[in-house]
Amino acid sequence: MKNYNKYKVGYFPPDKPHNEWVKKDHVEKAPIWCSVDLRDGNQALIVPMSLEEKVEFFKYLVKIGFKQIEVGFPAASKTEYQFLRKLVDENLIPDDVTVQVLTQSRKHIIKKTFESLKGVKKAIVHLYNSTSLAQREQVFKKEKPEIIKIATDGAALMKEYAAQNPETEFSFEYSPESFTGTEVDFAADICNAVIDIWEPTADNKVIINLPGTVEMSMPHVYASQIEYMCANLHNRENVIVSLHPHNDRGTAVADAELGLLAGGDRIEGTLFGNGERTGNVDVVTLAMNMFCHGVDPQLDFSNMPEVVETYEKYTDMKVHPRQPYGGQLVFAAFSGSHQDAIAKGMRWHKEKDLKTWSVPYLPLDPQDVGREYEADVIRINSQSGKGGVAYILENNFGYMIPQQMREEIGYMVKDISDKEHKELTPVEVYQAFAREYVNVFDPIDITDAAFRKASDFKANDGMIADIKVRIAGKVYQFEAVGNGRLDAISNALKMSPYTFDYKFITYSEHALSSESSSKAAAYVCIEDKNGDVFWGVGTHEDIILASVNALVSALNRQNKKDHFVE
Amino acid sequence: MKNYNKYKVGYFPPDKPHNEWVKKDHVEKAPIWCSVDLRDGNQALIVPMSLEEKVEFFKYLVKIGFKQIEVGFPAASKTEYQFLRKLVDENLIPDDVTVQVLTQSRKHIIKKTFESLKGVKKAIVHLYNSTSLAQREQVFKKEKPEIIKIATDGAALMKEYAAQNPETEFSFEYSPESFTGTEVDFAADICNAVIDIWEPTADNKVIINLPGTVEMSMPHVYASQIEYMCANLHNRENVIVSLHPHNDRGTAVADAELGLLAGGDRIEGTLFGNGERTGNVDVVTLAMNMFCHGVDPQLDFSNMPEVVETYEKYTDMKVHPRQPYGGQLVFAAFSGSHQDAIAKGMRWHKEKDLKTWSVPYLPLDPQDVGREYEADVIRINSQSGKGGVAYILENNFGYMIPQQMREEIGYMVKDISDKEHKELTPVEVYQAFAREYVNVFDPIDITDAAFRKASDFKANDGMIADIKVRIAGKVYQFEAVGNGRLDAISNALKMSPYTFDYKFITYSEHALSSESSSKAAAYVCIEDKNGDVFWGVGTHEDIILASVNALVSALNRQNKKDHFVE
Repeated sequence: MKNYNKYKVGYFPPDKPHNEWVKKDHVEKAPIWCSVDLRDGNQALIVPMSLEEKVEFFKYLVKIGFKQIEVGFPAASKTEYQFLRKLVDENLIPDDVTVQVLTQSRKHIIKKTFESLKGVKKAIVHLYNSTSLAQREQVFKKEKPEIIKIATDGAALMKEYAAQNPETEFSFEYSPESFTGTEVDFAADICNAVIDIWEPTADNKVIINLPGTVEMSMPHVYASQIEYMCANLHNRENVIVSLHPHNDRGTAVADAELGLLAGGDRIEGTLFGNGERTGNVDVVTLAMNMFCHGVDPQLDFSNMPEVVETYEKYTDMKVHPRQPYGGQLVFAAFSGSHQDAIAKGMRWHKEKDLKTWSVPYLPLDPQDVGREYEADVIRINSQSGKGGVAYILENNFGYMIPQQMREEIGYMVKDISDKEHKELTPVEVYQAFAREYVNVFDPIDITDAAFRKASDFKANDGMIADIKVRIAGKVYQFEAVGNGRLDAISNALKMSPYTFDYKFITYSEHALSSESSSKAAAYVCIEDKNGDVFWGVGTHEDIILASVNALVSALNRQNKKDHFVE
Repeated sequence: MKNYNKYKVGYFPPDKPHNEWVKKDHVEKAPIWCSVDLRDGNQALIVPMSLEEKVEFFKYLVKIGFKQIEVGFPAASKTEYQFLRKLVDENLIPDDVTVQVLTQSRKHIIKKTFESLKGVKKAIVHLYNSTSLAQREQVFKKEKPEIIKIATDGAALMKEYAAQNPETEFSFEYSPESFTGTEVDFAADICNAVIDIWEPTADNKVIINLPGTVEMSMPHVYASQIEYMCANLHNRENVIVSLHPHNDRGTAVADAELGLLAGGDRIEGTLFGNGERTGNVDVVTLAMNMFCHGVDPQLDFSNMPEVVETYEKYTDMKVHPRQPYGGQLVFAAFSGSHQDAIAKGMRWHKEKDLKTWSVPYLPLDPQDVGREYEADVIRINSQSGKGGVAYILENNFGYMIPQQMREEIGYMVKDISDKEHKELTPVEVYQAFAREYVNVFDPIDITDAAFRKASDFKANDGMIADIKVRIAGKVYQFEAVGNGRLDAISNALKMSPYTFDYKFITYSEHALSSESSSKAAAYVCIEDKNGDVFWGVGTHEDIILASVNALVSALNRQNKKDHFVE
């Protein structure tokens, strides 16, 4: 691939190492979350949301638990102005939620921004200007002091307008936009110039937001920049350090997480990482990552299918099937060994009644985000194995398939999927199993069976079976003794004019709990003189007849119709 | 969100810090790439690939530049066995490409694996067994020494079978599967036990692959685990340390990148991160991240649209519009300020003839991956601004809109997009512009114009215009003098029975280079007595008539039909 040498790293790590954060291993407390879905996310949609859609999306963000929501750039767009007014005028902002508005550092825009906020109880006014080397040179063609003046002029104006509107509780936020392309010392200088004007206090902190406007470095470099900023900001104790990563290099989540370890207090992001180009950092992933480390994320994604549906409805974007936590396939295990381990892990957790989740291949219990084991986890295609099929038959249909029988059923199902070139639903798996193994009554069908003890009640001389059997269309009646019912039936069958070559290998039976009627399921394995084994499964309300049906099914699988042609 | 306290961290960082990697800031050399698209990727598809699809996909991976390709688990699946045999028998494996096959550590499976490789020139045989605490306890119910024995038994067998097949050049790979849930010291122990059996040399290195089978920690923890392993593996200089991250926490790319800094030599991943659940690490992103730091990635993604198309065809998965580097929207700028900065940056790069790419908001030149500025970068919807619209009109249609005119055109286009609730294509932007501004000949239309100098050739007494003009359906002829042609026309028009209230504000003109005929485009701005301004645009092969058309267009925009009702 040519042209790689036309690129060089365009970011500016601190001169001295700022890597103390690396000593912590996970995030132990949820940050302050600020949703920028309605601004940064919305501006990146092919078709931005309508006023009505924005109102509904805002309500949903509140429902999820966001306490800070950036609602737009009211001075730059009529729709965003109207949206903000609607929220205020119709009293749609709950008392514990603060709306945030973005503004450039220009007098008429700041003025209009404050006008748009008339009557709101609490608001964050978010000032930004571009500070990167590239933007200074190419777009603004200004030197550093002039760029600082843009920021401080705006900061001073905001203080003025805020003083004129005492009915609103204002907080201030400043972003050195394109921070990741800005020399860190200059970023600190410009932020400090703004902080010095705003003079934050413990009661009125300011937010310094450090955006990865374009993600330019590896995530640990961003973290070291954040740690540098935290060490060099004036009045740090009254500054909330906010992170706003984008995903150009596919590591926005890592930027945010390492940035939190490095001192970040707050995250600006969007659901499923919507936003310009590759998107903003995905708040769902960040929150669920904390959740899976045992940390309360302070956002509620317990009904993930609804979150996905709502997001897709208003943004007209799709959540990718492999999107962490939200995607359709993120719990899916098609591979045989994964299915086997999950099935064993689930049983182990149940048996031991474990309080801590540690099932292999499932970092999250699907039920904690409103997903289901049955539909979402064990899925059957040509890559699947005995474990998955047995899991489906047990968990969806109540059949506890004997260990020795599993491999053969696994191969049968896998072959069907391979030949039909499609995934099989649980019902299709069951149908394949039932068709092949359960209550197979052709060519042999025992139509009646009566049993009596071979001697008196206390003696142990075995059972006598009196059966009616149809074989290849002809009906016979036989009576025989055996050491148990099944053995007696077997002996009776052997009285027929046909040769039966088999011996019993194993037998098991259990109640079929998952069906409404309380049937039993029985499994019989027989072996012929060549050592080939044949399994059969029988079901019946009567446990005796279930086992008879299992034997008959095994015999029918061994002896196909042509065996009985005279 | 309830239930967070049922989780705890399930990974095992090294006892002592292993964070030397944090001192490096970017990856300076491409790793050895191994594609696992055909195995790990394929097994996670709802419908796995057919034999034919696999062959085509294999060829495409070779074309991109992969030198190591895992082709499957031939002992576990008939299709994968047949696929490998087809590759060998039909001589489809280039000499510089090594196929890799996966095997469990069981005798009959290892045996069949070697059988499947008969006749291949070079092969990597990849042995694995699960080593995590969860798998040992829940699935295998075995202690550590028994788990080590599974690995070493397999390793010894592989050495035996390889010796029996001297016509193939075998390399060995071992994965402590579920490494990220394994105590690092135990992971080192089991890998060392295998290394001690294989006795690698400089000529015959072995691969130790450390999979993030499930991504369980933050990426820097994985990096510290890798650094620990690199420090503790026997015979390190003859071991290739391979990384195989998954994306459960959305940080697979960060795992791979930090892992490379920590000592990794090799990456196993897939195109666009296909793979179980949330997928494997995305090799496209990793390679392009290096590319954007000026490092030769050794893989060729210069035709990204083709890579996307091929991937989607064979996997039946979609590449998400925001997928780094490959997604449809990753170069898109809808926002006005982004468009403005991109337009300025592009011009700056062109004017300065810069060799190093540093355009704001575009970390990558779209042309380097076969994408286009026109279709992919500046896109117009209700969030867009003057910069984007002006960029489209200039770059797609050749109109260099005067600075003072841009804002009004920007608002016009934005309003159309807002009202129609859709993105506008460049052609639609042009049509809206042309309909409103260009050669507007109603109600006023100058149907003929002749000019002559007002005095002799050398004097400067201005121009006389003799025009025929149709105004609201009636044709007039006027003659007037002016200090230039446009002024003369203007004065002639003012002789009509109608009032014209305007003065010239500005005028500019340029050749319309992008059209096949060499037309000129002229821009005229007039102002009425209230200070309202009206722009008009004229085009014509004759530069004089272009300016006349511009003036007429401006007048027509000022004076709508009702102005002329008598």
